[in-house]
Amino acid sequence: MAKKNLNKISPLAPKSTKMLNPIDGVKLYTYCANLYNKKRNDLSVFIFEGKCFIAEVFTNSSLRSATLDWNSKALKGKEVQAIIVNSGNANTFTGKQGERAIEQVVKTIASQFKISEKKIFIASTGVIGEPFPTHKVIKALKQKKSPSKNWIDAARAIMTTDTYPKGISINTSIGNQKVKITGISKGSGMIEPNMATMLGFIFTDAELSPSILRSLINKFTPDSFNSISVDGDESTNDTVMLTSTNAKKLNNKIHSINDTRLKKFKLDLKKVFLYLAEQIVRDGEGATKLIEINIKNAKSKFSADKISRSIANSALVKTAIYGGDPNWGRIVMAIGKTYEKVNKGKLHISFGKYLVAKNGLANPKIDESKLRKYLSKDRININIDLNNGREESRILTCDFSHRYIDINASYKT
Amino acid sequence: MAKKNLNKISPLAPKSTKMLNPIDGVKLYTYCANLYNKKRNDLSVFIFEGKCFIAEVFTNSSLRSATLDWNSKALKGKEVQAIIVNSGNANTFTGKQGERAIEQVVKTIASQFKISEKKIFIASTGVIGEPFPTHKVIKALKQKKSPSKNWIDAARAIMTTDTYPKGISINTSIGNQKVKITGISKGSGMIEPNMATMLGFIFTDAELSPSILRSLINKFTPDSFNSISVDGDESTNDTVMLTSTNAKKLNNKIHSINDTRLKKFKLDLKKVFLYLAEQIVRDGEGATKLIEINIKNAKSKFSADKISRSIANSALVKTAIYGGDPNWGRIVMAIGKTYEKVNKGKLHISFGKYLVAKNGLANPKIDESKLRKYLSKDRININIDLNNGREESRILTCDFSHRYIDINASYKT
Repeated sequence: MAKKNLNKISPLAPKSTKMLNPIDGVKLYTYCANLYNKKRNDLSVFIFEGKCFIAEVFTNSSLRSATLDWNSKALKGKEVQAIIVNSGNANTFTGKQGERAIEQVVKTIASQFKISEKKIFIASTGVIGEPFPTHKVIKALKQKKSPSKNWIDAARAIMTTDTYPKGISINTSIGNQKVKITGISKGSGMIEPNMATMLGFIFTDAELSPSILRSLINKFTPDSFNSISVDGDESTNDTVMLTSTNAKKLNNKIHSINDTRLKKFKLDLKKVFLYLAEQIVRDGEGATKLIEINIKNAKSKFSADKISRSIANSALVKTAIYGGDPNWGRIVMAIGKTYEKVNKGKLHISFGKYLVAKNGLANPKIDESKLRKYLSKDRININIDLNNGREESRILTCDFSHRYIDINASYKT
Repeated sequence: MAKKNLNKISPLAPKSTKMLNPIDGVKLYTYCANLYNKKRNDLSVFIFEGKCFIAEVFTNSSLRSATLDWNSKALKGKEVQAIIVNSGNANTFTGKQGERAIEQVVKTIASQFKISEKKIFIASTGVIGEPFPTHKVIKALKQKKSPSKNWIDAARAIMTTDTYPKGISINTSIGNQKVKITGISKGSGMIEPNMATMLGFIFTDAELSPSILRSLINKFTPDSFNSISVDGDESTNDTVMLTSTNAKKLNNKIHSINDTRLKKFKLDLKKVFLYLAEQIVRDGEGATKLIEINIKNAKSKFSADKISRSIANSALVKTAIYGGDPNWGRIVMAIGKTYEKVNKGKLHISFGKYLVAKNGLANPKIDESKLRKYLSKDRININIDLNNGREESRILTCDFSHRYIDINASYKT
């Protein structure tokens, strides 16, 4: 397999990498545990001070990583003192060895940082089915390190086939009090609704209870991390965590996510979720185009989601967009194969503002040259109006290119 | 897009193209209706003599071709006097124009061959959403033609992105009477369980009633045409037809498919179904390897099928096989993302005879060099033992290569 340029930065990456602000109440340490052949940081440890809370969303995979079984238990306490993330090994299909690895790693962190084992969370991403490199990780953790001043260090250390680090910091407010949000994420294969080898970590210093965190993560995950798809594959290790350090005490506690003081904070937190999820698609393996699929006027939310996901995961649609080919027949195919009842005679399909099919027929008035010019851009909207009800669905995906094959035919080897 | 070599014959094609025997009671005429830019036959008409019967299986797509609506109606009579098949245009998303096209084409055939419009069946395959080229087709049909002596002519005329014609003839028997079977098929994108732009036509001269044909097609389609996948996409036009010309009268009629006289015939008919379906995968767009996935000991047939299809349709599994990469972690991922409950600790995964994961753990005894040699072959078996019940599933698919992208990023243009 051609290995050339596999690490070339995605053409859809942001122009520059911004500073990521540390969040008061958390210290970040990054390490090189030598989990890759080349020298790079592959281990991040976030150490929380004081009483800090966490909410987490997992993959639905029935063969999930041992780390998620661990987190499920830890999550019952709702408190967090550490999050450790390693790339290079997924700790999945590693049996008893993998479970023991977690215990040993957790014990090491607990003793190094003088914290409770039960408040430590783990996320692992990388190859499935290889024994977890416990000794390497423990050896790394025993190094003396200073905390990072720029959290982009963590965004880099959690990368696997990602071509650039993904993160965002926003200074926002709750009521009239200033608070901060910083988030990082990684992709980039096995990305599908209900998440993928997709990790997202979002931190705030705002004083927020576990139940508020839970409500916020449940509110913002469906339209962000659960509305993206790279290849229709879903990982054993997906996880999104939202934490509050409570370093910034509020004048009055928040008891409901409908509290009007949360208005700006919620808008900004939503931005963070959407941004981190979109970056994962922008760094989709081999992606050359970002595709946004919008379904309108479906008979049910279920139907709208099923149709948007079918289009987003169709290899034929994604290769057509890669080739700049206005082959909307493949979109018809992708709608049809959901078996959802649709009214053919009322169906509209557009690429951006270019209506290609109207009431179940090719639009003869289409300006092919303008359409082709639009399809040569690196952001394509596919808009479907089913005229069949009132429900909607939006999903982000990317095209399917030669580089996807390059990357995935030689990932492990 | 690179257009080079898009028509290169699949490396998985049979070494030679065999003669396909005409079936007594059917005449085949092939035409060039100029539905392609280059000169080639693109229209086949089978004309049946006497009282002939038909059974048909359709796509489940909710946006199926107008041709299938027509056939559904015609099928109520159970008799067939003609089958017309065109490549180059799918007659899907063509609205009233498409429906009128069918009426006009049917009328032309009826008058040319002096047969009943109601006993004419149509299959169309090609680009979706372009007006049906009625005049070209009618003009072609009015040419004077002699019947084909080798039905490979039809196998060629129904090709779209297929790289070779697919067909098989078997001389078999019912009781002690000799009868014949000939079948043809075409692929090769949008192939998924429950069929795809996949057409199959199977003919016999044996005297068989419509209800026997219906039972036979229902018996053999699930494990053949409905157990193949190229890209997880399913077409609007899929169809398989099984016809009997009744030219070979049986000494005693067959009233049940359990009649012992049908034993050899059923074995051979099954061979024909399996062969034609396998050829579609062998000619999968860009295929370099045929992959057979076998699920054993699943808790239910539903679960076994869901898991085999998830593996067959995983872009990550298919690119790994393309690269000869023993990355069985992706198989674990594909099983997990079905959300089917499986017992991780009892799961075995093998490539051919090479057991790579045993009881939920990597097999440390694996001979990596032998395994890699096996994975460099052009036929790969993936065997999953769930140790979870007694049900099985088998599905054929192919790998995902650079050529798939080449072909599909430039199909229409």
